[in-house]
Amino acid sequence: MTIKAVVFDAYGTLYDVQSVADVTERSFPGYGGIITQIWRLKQLEYTWLRSLMERYEDFEVVTRESLLFTLRSLDLPQQTAVVDDLMERYLRLDPYPDAKATLAALGGHRLAILSNGSPAMLKALVRASGLDDLLDATISVDARKVFKPSPLAYTLIETVLGTPPAEVLFVSSNPFDVSGAKSFGLKVAWIDRVPPAALAADLAQPARIAPLTLFNILRAQLDQLGFTPDYRIQALSNLPAILAC
Amino acid sequence: MTIKAVVFDAYGTLYDVQSVADVTERSFPGYGGIITQIWRLKQLEYTWLRSLMERYEDFEVVTRESLLFTLRSLDLPQQTAVVDDLMERYLRLDPYPDAKATLAALGGHRLAILSNGSPAMLKALVRASGLDDLLDATISVDARKVFKPSPLAYTLIETVLGTPPAEVLFVSSNPFDVSGAKSFGLKVAWIDRVPPAALAADLAQPARIAPLTLFNILRAQLDQLGFTPDYRIQALSNLPAILAC
Repeated sequence: MTIKAVVFDAYGTLYDVQSVADVTERSFPGYGGIITQIWRLKQLEYTWLRSLMERYEDFEVVTRESLLFTLRSLDLPQQTAVVDDLMERYLRLDPYPDAKATLAALGGHRLAILSNGSPAMLKALVRASGLDDLLDATISVDARKVFKPSPLAYTLIETVLGTPPAEVLFVSSNPFDVSGAKSFGLKVAWIDRVPPAALAADLAQPARIAPLTLFNILRAQLDQLGFTPDYRIQALSNLPAILAC
Repeated sequence: MTIKAVVFDAYGTLYDVQSVADVTERSFPGYGGIITQIWRLKQLEYTWLRSLMERYEDFEVVTRESLLFTLRSLDLPQQTAVVDDLMERYLRLDPYPDAKATLAALGGHRLAILSNGSPAMLKALVRASGLDDLLDATISVDARKVFKPSPLAYTLIETVLGTPPAEVLFVSSNPFDVSGAKSFGLKVAWIDRVPPAALAADLAQPARIAPLTLFNILRAQLDQLGFTPDYRIQALSNLPAILAC
């Protein structure tokens, strides 16, 4: 396999979007779980809807608006100080425990992020997590004013790195991003982090489900859109073995 | 108000998408609620993702694929006969009880549907429900090969009816459709059918929530995208009073 560049999705792939749950729970005791999931579900919805409506606003706007939607729809107060606090947590999401070591182990390749995040959000994120020194580029879709999975977003990889699609391994845990990247023509590794046994246990009571289970059904299972990833792995740490083949 | 045409969304507005719940529950006892909600949530997701990926397939394909996704993600069998049975229910969704009388009462205006549905699905639907005789046109986005809320979809109203956007009242219960129609420039009436008291009661236990509640949070609350409807009503039967003003 002639892979010259490995390009990572950020939110959900290198960084754990679930790590905001500590602040959502502290701010709204008992509602941390549902806020965390609705926020992320609507955040992605809004990237798609704004792109399709041709009403692009950057990911910071979308993230704030989806949080405001979440609090309003749950009939919770939307004080600016609390909202600012939750937004700030998004700038220092926890990287997955194997993120740094994996990037270090892939040093023979060009390494980059291609993310929906705004340039300012991504800059804060890679700096706070110490991944900035390991990356050759942090690419924001903001340059195209459209979000993934628009093919225009994925063209930025070649524009910035100069690497053609067939020589790029794109890594994402987000099924919609896997479909978009495959549809565009990249090689794709899907990180499937949800243990089927855990999901099955929670689905034994389908009349009422935990918010995280709902997220794991809606946004962590491979989509039925006609595209399948080239590789399916359980963790970032499986990447070096794939690239050594 | 100089409204010459009243144009309705179909799924969720004139027709109750929740009415498939009898067949989903009969086919998969105990799982009817969650199948019904995940199916509809993913069906809309797939219209947005396919539009954005520039991989349009018609609504029949999208509806079947989202159903297959739902059954697979819930670890339920996907027998063709059962899937066909569920798909068939989509061709004869229950109209809301006030749909027929409302259309009859609005006879002084041009009346149409603008829907994501494929021409074949819509034809079956309006015929089965007896609304076909009351409508001047049943317009499918299929002519543009893109789904709502793309502005291209809404251009079909003027193309087919000859009525400019400012003289059209667009009616939808779907918040994304309300935003899309307002963004495009139509006058919009939003049907807000979810009683806040029912939602609040179910949200008292946020650790585990009913699938329908989840749907009512995610897809029945006004979105935070910068657009607000001109009218907010509780039922189709409120329309004649608005148009009489």
